[in-house]
Amino acid sequence: MRIAALEKNGNTAFYALEGDLARRIGPIGGSALSPFEGGKPEGEAVPWSPAELRAPVRPSKIVCIGRNYAAHAKELGNEVPKEPMLFFKPPSSIIGPGESIELPVESERVDHEAELGVVISKRVRRISREDAMSAVFGYTCVCDVSARDLQKKDGQWARAKGFDTFCPVGPWVETDIDPSDLAVECRVDGQVRQHGRTSQMIFDIPAIVAYVSNAFTLEPGDLIVTGTPEGVGPLAAGNELTIAIERIGELTVRVKNAPRV
Amino acid sequence: MRIAALEKNGNTAFYALEGDLARRIGPIGGSALSPFEGGKPEGEAVPWSPAELRAPVRPSKIVCIGRNYAAHAKELGNEVPKEPMLFFKPPSSIIGPGESIELPVESERVDHEAELGVVISKRVRRISREDAMSAVFGYTCVCDVSARDLQKKDGQWARAKGFDTFCPVGPWVETDIDPSDLAVECRVDGQVRQHGRTSQMIFDIPAIVAYVSNAFTLEPGDLIVTGTPEGVGPLAAGNELTIAIERIGELTVRVKNAPRV
Repeated sequence: MRIAALEKNGNTAFYALEGDLARRIGPIGGSALSPFEGGKPEGEAVPWSPAELRAPVRPSKIVCIGRNYAAHAKELGNEVPKEPMLFFKPPSSIIGPGESIELPVESERVDHEAELGVVISKRVRRISREDAMSAVFGYTCVCDVSARDLQKKDGQWARAKGFDTFCPVGPWVETDIDPSDLAVECRVDGQVRQHGRTSQMIFDIPAIVAYVSNAFTLEPGDLIVTGTPEGVGPLAAGNELTIAIERIGELTVRVKNAPRV
Repeated sequence: MRIAALEKNGNTAFYALEGDLARRIGPIGGSALSPFEGGKPEGEAVPWSPAELRAPVRPSKIVCIGRNYAAHAKELGNEVPKEPMLFFKPPSSIIGPGESIELPVESERVDHEAELGVVISKRVRRISREDAMSAVFGYTCVCDVSARDLQKKDGQWARAKGFDTFCPVGPWVETDIDPSDLAVECRVDGQVRQHGRTSQMIFDIPAIVAYVSNAFTLEPGDLIVTGTPEGVGPLAAGNELTIAIERIGELTVRVKNAPRV
């Protein structure tokens, strides 16, 4: 199933997409069950358009894995980690298809990092590697936008990776795919900047979900971002950025300077 | 005003406390406005008891400030920071009065850090230091529980400071106080372990709120945790931990070993 958030007539709701048609699951927020909690498509199928797509997740937390591709760890001069390396991005950093990454005045070097996002389907704590895939709802494209200069300067990465607009997600969540060997690509203005495969991850998805759940209870809808292949590089105002993942689709956002206030 | 979350007959809701009586503001979640978004006490005053107190916040994010008291920075061998140092704890780490910090099997050294918590009242982005206090709803007691060994080992602090139960908050949120010179104390089994004053902060509350809002849009109910005075030290199973802040009150939780699974 392909789950999207669509804005129609000023209201955003979750829908199941079936080709050119969409069936509504329910409004976002309030008492309606989200698709990640078991909400099902109801009512008639209606047409939808790409311009209606919004960020397809509303996580209570975003857990990211650092240095999970050996070639990327090396390109930044880091060692390959012995355990998954965890950090958070805040929910306030999420943007959806067609929105813009805003380059903050505090940074002179903001990089793209194309990553596979894993969406959680149920509340789990200390789930085993063997059972971990039972807690996965589906997959989406994420860009872990990173202010590289502040990442070094601050030490802790909260600010460098957490600015508003630094977590583009979309275009939708795809549920019925095998994530173990998907092509992950980043293009800037049509030019390929990153290209890798999820099979190159140091820690695979079951290992990551299990490890993360050993520290934090995972909630339905939570997002785990699984690391980036080599080829990270800077973004500039005016760029068009596309994260493309095999069997999911393409997320495209623009890049602009944040308003100077 | 003193705002608490009370569990009555299996339902948790926000209340305004007035001495021995409590007036309901509304249920948590759903479409009711939380007190942080402007929800007001309605209906008749009813009795309440301390056993009904639950964690009084439901933040979309928890932003913490590291090394914000010079004596604490030095006791761990760190320099005094030139800018506020930010990190996140996940909402899943929150516990309330009477609950237990669970010492995870992964760590051999879990420390207490008594801190003043600041609760946000409105959506703000890049608010100035001069206007920052207009975005503050109130204040509460927080323990920034920290697995000191993993903090060093992991580099990024997400796991070391983010385990389930690592963010005790309470006993309530106090709205009408001046936070600039409050005594902050940590007691373990009745013995004073930390004692400082908020006037010793390197970055004061207006400076912190402004700085944080330059990176992340703040939402009503978000929690900023403002750093700990010197005297941090280890917790052990069986301890009773109290965070006491002048003009707010006392938050008491217990400490136990996490279930070995």
